[in-house]
Amino acid sequence: MTPPKTESCSFPLVITDQSSMRKWSRTVRHRQGLTLALVPTMGYLHRGHIALIEEARKHADAIVVSIYVNPGQFAPSEDLSTYPRDFPGDLEKLRVLGCVNAVFCPRDLYDYRDAGSRGGRRDEGGVAARSCVEERECGHETWVRVERLEKGLCGKSRPVFFRGVATVVCKLFHVVEPDVAVFGKKDYQQWRIIQRMVRDLDFDLRIIGSEIVREDDGLAMSSRNVNLTPEERQKALSISRSLSMAKHAAENGEHGCQILKDSVIRAIEEAGGRIDYAEIVEQDTLEAATEIRSPVVFCVAAWFGKVRLIDNMEIDS
Amino acid sequence: MTPPKTESCSFPLVITDQSSMRKWSRTVRHRQGLTLALVPTMGYLHRGHIALIEEARKHADAIVVSIYVNPGQFAPSEDLSTYPRDFPGDLEKLRVLGCVNAVFCPRDLYDYRDAGSRGGRRDEGGVAARSCVEERECGHETWVRVERLEKGLCGKSRPVFFRGVATVVCKLFHVVEPDVAVFGKKDYQQWRIIQRMVRDLDFDLRIIGSEIVREDDGLAMSSRNVNLTPEERQKALSISRSLSMAKHAAENGEHGCQILKDSVIRAIEEAGGRIDYAEIVEQDTLEAATEIRSPVVFCVAAWFGKVRLIDNMEIDS
Repeated sequence: MTPPKTESCSFPLVITDQSSMRKWSRTVRHRQGLTLALVPTMGYLHRGHIALIEEARKHADAIVVSIYVNPGQFAPSEDLSTYPRDFPGDLEKLRVLGCVNAVFCPRDLYDYRDAGSRGGRRDEGGVAARSCVEERECGHETWVRVERLEKGLCGKSRPVFFRGVATVVCKLFHVVEPDVAVFGKKDYQQWRIIQRMVRDLDFDLRIIGSEIVREDDGLAMSSRNVNLTPEERQKALSISRSLSMAKHAAENGEHGCQILKDSVIRAIEEAGGRIDYAEIVEQDTLEAATEIRSPVVFCVAAWFGKVRLIDNMEIDS
Repeated sequence: MTPPKTESCSFPLVITDQSSMRKWSRTVRHRQGLTLALVPTMGYLHRGHIALIEEARKHADAIVVSIYVNPGQFAPSEDLSTYPRDFPGDLEKLRVLGCVNAVFCPRDLYDYRDAGSRGGRRDEGGVAARSCVEERECGHETWVRVERLEKGLCGKSRPVFFRGVATVVCKLFHVVEPDVAVFGKKDYQQWRIIQRMVRDLDFDLRIIGSEIVREDDGLAMSSRNVNLTPEERQKALSISRSLSMAKHAAENGEHGCQILKDSVIRAIEEAGGRIDYAEIVEQDTLEAATEIRSPVVFCVAAWFGKVRLIDNMEIDS
């Protein structure tokens, strides 16, 4: 397999299994001496993802985009089955973009049935080789926990979420072996958790946080936006608008977090949204702030109909 | 830094920091094209460790022995402070052995104060860079959990133990980047947990289980044996002797696990030992067996005075 040259790449190579992915990465990194960036996604790509890829270009010679809807981060009650998917459309977007060298779209990252036949991964001593994701009760049982950062915000209503995210990202790092990985700051807590995991487990790679991309009217880009009705979508603007107003107020002297939170909660509820949480937390520790005295981030999760949206704004003043 | 050639190595290189370790490993593996084995230890080396190193020689061109008493696997109530240490003695043993290329003896694997100054590990976005081990309340918060295998046997009385082992081994794998790692089957549950972690997290390396090494009188080699009084040491022979008798009985038709367990418990208690557990479990899943119909392992932990000893025997009939 000859990896496409970075400059002339016009169509990404599609890689569907772990050993081919690792082999390609090592060829690119060790033989060609290029640096490699990974942009992990769950597909249904929008301009937010494109911004991640453009950020990745600044930091590495070659880019892998992974597309994998990770069952390990969805509870059985959540929207795994309705999570939007469009692999042909995604591939076309990446082809048009032109700078992505490879797309890694594994069929199942938790199926270990052929683990014994993969070079270097044979278990000595007869460990059962058949497994699937935990929800399928098929044998995967190793989970990476970032025990403090995973607790608050989205971790409260989605207790398996960050365990699943950290674990699948750990797996992707081991398979793709990138020098750099890019995560969107829209998933602010996720970004911080991955940073902490990389430090605590001595991964040799750099995590880049990429700024939120918004629609012209302010709605933060999300694959789930497509599941909003036109009416819900209009109401959902209350999130970004109230966050902007709170940020403006904070930057103009209103440093009381409860007052700022109340204003956002009121605006979203008046628009018909159901608040999951609205919290102002320290940017690095994600611990709740009562007054804005250091860099904080205002994080919101709210339901509009059957769709749960998240958004946040950093306040540095 | 020029790594010593495998053939002529007579004194191991001593490496004390992560970035030098990784750099050395990459030179050996990528430039010299050698395969690398890691033998993780907590030092105070005995013939059991030497057997691990000899096993490693069969599977790789070059060998790293790590020596690190990992605070992450000790509860505050346990014997971290009295765990025996003798680094000069260990180094002399490895020098005499002659086949170990490098000794990795980091000062503190949970001190991230200079993380920002290490190449490729800089946190983007201001994560607090100071941390120590969790028990020191200094910031490390990422733990690898092998959720089923960690629960039984030693996991019952040592709830933080396997979390700490899996995590530090994950860190060591990321720093040393070996092709092969060797673990002793004396720590049977640990060996199975590391195998499972490697499979579930897609590590690209092979785990080798190395057989138990015993003193001439049958006592399983352990760094902790030195803490036994001569009298306790004599009494502790009841573990290996009763296990041998149970194995012999099983191989000659006694397939009832309760009868076999009772005989071992009785023998150890009569010798003055205090049983932590005595269990017969399936070799791959570590689930309790009631009858011996498939490959099992008879695992025992018992206290003699202030020393907790473990031992096990596989029964394949």
